[in-house]
Amino acid sequence: MAVYTEVPDDEVESFLTEYNIGDVLSLKGIAEGVENSNYILHTTTGHYILTLYEKRVEKADLPFFLGYMQHLAAKGISCPVPIAGKDGNNLRELCGRPAAITAFLDGMWPRRIQPFHCRALGKTMAEMHLAGQDFSLTRPNALSVKGWKEVLDACEDKGEQVKAGLTDTLNKEYEYLEKHWPGNLPQGVIHADMFQDNVFFIHEKLSGVIDFYFACNDLLAYELAICLNAWCFELDNSFNITKAQLMLRAYQEVRPLTQNELQALPLLARGASLRFLLTRLYDWINHPEGAFVKPKDPIEYLNKLKFHQSVKSIADYGIAL
Amino acid sequence: MAVYTEVPDDEVESFLTEYNIGDVLSLKGIAEGVENSNYILHTTTGHYILTLYEKRVEKADLPFFLGYMQHLAAKGISCPVPIAGKDGNNLRELCGRPAAITAFLDGMWPRRIQPFHCRALGKTMAEMHLAGQDFSLTRPNALSVKGWKEVLDACEDKGEQVKAGLTDTLNKEYEYLEKHWPGNLPQGVIHADMFQDNVFFIHEKLSGVIDFYFACNDLLAYELAICLNAWCFELDNSFNITKAQLMLRAYQEVRPLTQNELQALPLLARGASLRFLLTRLYDWINHPEGAFVKPKDPIEYLNKLKFHQSVKSIADYGIAL
Repeated sequence: MAVYTEVPDDEVESFLTEYNIGDVLSLKGIAEGVENSNYILHTTTGHYILTLYEKRVEKADLPFFLGYMQHLAAKGISCPVPIAGKDGNNLRELCGRPAAITAFLDGMWPRRIQPFHCRALGKTMAEMHLAGQDFSLTRPNALSVKGWKEVLDACEDKGEQVKAGLTDTLNKEYEYLEKHWPGNLPQGVIHADMFQDNVFFIHEKLSGVIDFYFACNDLLAYELAICLNAWCFELDNSFNITKAQLMLRAYQEVRPLTQNELQALPLLARGASLRFLLTRLYDWINHPEGAFVKPKDPIEYLNKLKFHQSVKSIADYGIAL
Repeated sequence: MAVYTEVPDDEVESFLTEYNIGDVLSLKGIAEGVENSNYILHTTTGHYILTLYEKRVEKADLPFFLGYMQHLAAKGISCPVPIAGKDGNNLRELCGRPAAITAFLDGMWPRRIQPFHCRALGKTMAEMHLAGQDFSLTRPNALSVKGWKEVLDACEDKGEQVKAGLTDTLNKEYEYLEKHWPGNLPQGVIHADMFQDNVFFIHEKLSGVIDFYFACNDLLAYELAICLNAWCFELDNSFNITKAQLMLRAYQEVRPLTQNELQALPLLARGASLRFLLTRLYDWINHPEGAFVKPKDPIEYLNKLKFHQSVKSIADYGIAL
């Protein structure tokens, strides 16, 4: 929940002279996103989102993110389309920060995930993976196997304060994954943060995907693994095989998984668990006292990791080889 | 900057079945207002503001506030018009809180006050005062003379921590005002919090007034006194007589002030200074360590008070008796 940079009325007025989207009528900061400042911008031509990129986003990565959204939108994927200025650029500066305007996307993120959400997600995810195949820019995933090690080291042994034995579990899991991580699976651009607050629905229809600021090149099936964790567990940590089956089947109707991908899925799911367990643990032990944004519980992802460690085959995810 | 209560997607969907404003398309919490939770609501019929009233607003006062907005809107004053539900009520409950939907109001509040803003404000203020004359509900001003005493007592002598001698200044000023406060001036409904962030403009045109949650019955000229303080001082504490003159003249073109009101203006301005000095002081000495909302500097209002104490006649505000 955040507006880090306040945009004065006269500054947005002059900013809009660089675009062909009319004159400003209203600008309201929205309480969404923890990385950037976001505004709903109403002009004489419609509604938009104005984003000011704060320090947690690398400026050098913005052409990749904005270009990817533009690329997806051109292929019919519903996402916030960046609006180009009169000079053709969609990235400029406002109040000393990199800034972009995107189309406003209707829809709400689902507070209670139901099976139909998972089915719609699987289909859209596969469509995004196919649409991204000919995107020309690349960005390595800073939070893939090598990146996990850096977070693991940065946590030192402070995981012990959260749960006894956690450091040992993390080290062993990392060693195992580092040794067995597959290198030969289909790659492409993934969203990499497709949690429920980044996927909008209008009733049962998926209306769009937002927040592409973790997008990167990685194994496509790894995105499915992230979403198995983010969408298919209940609040009591139990795994909902119906949701997983619907998501995986819907995905495969658009982009069938290879045998190698299917076989790797439990391992990828362990990796996805470790990745969010580590970053949540880091945020948990490093968040400032009394900070406004409450860190998320890392132990939720320890439970998910344990589930995937216990999986015998992908039949446990509701599908067959 | 605040969304205290998060409204889930399914709860807003069922809430909207009580209205005739279509189906929800989007709901985004906005980072505005420190008292309530506000959302921009987009439905199939347009844009609205959904407000959930948090504990700082008395539920018993809401019919007054909403009724006043409705009354003003019916008389052509641009403000957030409350939308009635199918049953005719504009106040209902959502997520355990009193809630109302109002029309969305375009415009932005001016970060840098210019003379034309003050002229437009004077005109609209007078129109509001006239429009409110036949509003049937009443609400006493909890922050008029009697209320100041309560805040003064609650501050004890902690003002000394902010500035040496402050407690003595406050006590003496209160005694003086309590003795001389006029009882025979025209009364009516005033907004009572018409600061720059509550008045919207589109370029030079005043597009509307928001945030009626301090509205009450009081001396009409006291509202002018509040606005002399809020709109006619520069950041260096100097009084801008041009702005004051434009505001007062524009007001009088719609509603001429009586001789008594004109004569009382310096005294009313002292009262308006004391009122905001006291509440800011109270918030300053009582705000929780590390709170997200930074309290406003009370000393700004001590400087304003000193100016009005030094005023010899209303000629110092740029107008004549």
